[in-house]
Amino acid sequence: MPNILFSARPDAWADYEEPLRTALAEAGVTATLGPDLPEEAVDYIVYAPNGPLRDFAPFPRLKAVLSLWAGVETIAGNPSLRVPLARMVDPSLTQGMVEWVTGHALRHHLGMDAHILAKPGEWQPHTPPVAWERTVTVLGLGALGAACAQMLARIGFQVRGWSRRPRDVEGIACHHGDEGLATALHGADIAVLLLPATAATENILNAARLALLAPGAVILNPGRGTLIDDAALLAALGTGQVGHATLDVFRVEPLPADHAFWHHPRVTVTPHVAAETRAASASRCIAENVRRAEAGEPLLHLVDRGAGY
Amino acid sequence: MPNILFSARPDAWADYEEPLRTALAEAGVTATLGPDLPEEAVDYIVYAPNGPLRDFAPFPRLKAVLSLWAGVETIAGNPSLRVPLARMVDPSLTQGMVEWVTGHALRHHLGMDAHILAKPGEWQPHTPPVAWERTVTVLGLGALGAACAQMLARIGFQVRGWSRRPRDVEGIACHHGDEGLATALHGADIAVLLLPATAATENILNAARLALLAPGAVILNPGRGTLIDDAALLAALGTGQVGHATLDVFRVEPLPADHAFWHHPRVTVTPHVAAETRAASASRCIAENVRRAEAGEPLLHLVDRGAGY
Repeated sequence: MPNILFSARPDAWADYEEPLRTALAEAGVTATLGPDLPEEAVDYIVYAPNGPLRDFAPFPRLKAVLSLWAGVETIAGNPSLRVPLARMVDPSLTQGMVEWVTGHALRHHLGMDAHILAKPGEWQPHTPPVAWERTVTVLGLGALGAACAQMLARIGFQVRGWSRRPRDVEGIACHHGDEGLATALHGADIAVLLLPATAATENILNAARLALLAPGAVILNPGRGTLIDDAALLAALGTGQVGHATLDVFRVEPLPADHAFWHHPRVTVTPHVAAETRAASASRCIAENVRRAEAGEPLLHLVDRGAGY
Repeated sequence: MPNILFSARPDAWADYEEPLRTALAEAGVTATLGPDLPEEAVDYIVYAPNGPLRDFAPFPRLKAVLSLWAGVETIAGNPSLRVPLARMVDPSLTQGMVEWVTGHALRHHLGMDAHILAKPGEWQPHTPPVAWERTVTVLGLGALGAACAQMLARIGFQVRGWSRRPRDVEGIACHHGDEGLATALHGADIAVLLLPATAATENILNAARLALLAPGAVILNPGRGTLIDDAALLAALGTGQVGHATLDVFRVEPLPADHAFWHHPRVTVTPHVAAETRAASASRCIAENVRRAEAGEPLLHLVDRGAGY
């Protein structure tokens, strides 16, 4: 009977205890589960990096670390971690991301802010182009990026995708590599950032690449704060090359109240809400991997720790 | 060679002349087209009710009236009209409506306004439910309502539809008739109004029906201003039974600057932009019907003038 340590922010245990017990039972796994287990007895760690645990060395029986988060950049490089690491792939998380990206893409496409902020009597109809007259480029074609790209295409947008390594996503014009990035960004009206945070993606949206977009383009960043060169983005907002940026992730969170992004009239800050793991569906993902490990089956959603994602 | 009178707001001719000539040529129709033709020579009228023409009696050769608008309530009851009337079914108009409805549904679902209107430093993350935890009811399952209902379902919402007469829309729980209306509205989180304006639909969303919705429900009205009992809506906003209303159509347009809707903090006014006919695709719809009429084929999108739509 495996012992499963829950290691996350202390208040998360209250959210997860019941869903995890239910999901384990439904997966047919009998286990001891808790936030305080003797280190030498722990077989699995259900892990979020916002808890206190940093050193995986003192767990001699540890078989796998099961991340509660989709983004694993703060765990992947941990040298004390010598067992398989699985990321979270939560259908609710993907769904939440698709909703955030689709909703904000439509918000900017339709020019909703002008109506939300209109003064009484400001009746100024103008017809926006339809979606198939707009190009949206999604950087990152993992589970989240691919799902967002496909929903945007279903809405009617012309969608391009880009990833470092070649990928195929049905219905999406896919580009890859350094040269493909320029092609993917060229003339795009909306850019959506859904890349992992790695050394190779830091500041990937820099001044030169912002200049490739259509004048007045919209930036949506629900991915990671490090993907954008913040100073270059503010400069491009200043010249009008970028018309608006809606940002959900930042180098420092919560975003400090004196940060320029809070004060820029054409920047919208959303407080890291684009993709939240929901306890019930996340618990099913965790339980399925415990079941697989105990049955000697390969884990789902294993992280390539060399690549960092 | 048929003579086609263009009768709409005077400035519309500049938008439509070229697209109509192109579409007629592409449909293989040779015709005389213009905004000023002798009444006795007119075979077809391309018509919008915001032009001066009200009396169809002085057109002895008239074969059909081809509406530039989807909503025909101001024409359908005109006793001087004794020839077939076809409504506009413009793919761009349907697309624009789908974008407006989907965008505003997601806006309210995600609670975007709080972020758009946030003050610097207001970092208050909360996780909204995912779309499949929300019920959206679409009243009206014509071309526009059905397309919106299906896109909302594709996004993930639980979607119910309602129409006066029984209709089937794939993937949508369809209700009809007076009893079906209460079932369709009961507990809905978002109600979308896409019914035609007829005597039977006037004030269809009244106090009793607003009370059926989930507390704090959202109303989206891109249909017709007469569908809502405005006083009942303001009362329901006052009690919180309705959490927000986003309205695109009104009994008087432009909406007068002193109207309560402009001044209510939980009402968003959009200036009749949800579905605009685009000249190019609308012209193809018109040209196809002229071609059909000249070839003796049945017209597309004929209006049932008894029902008024």
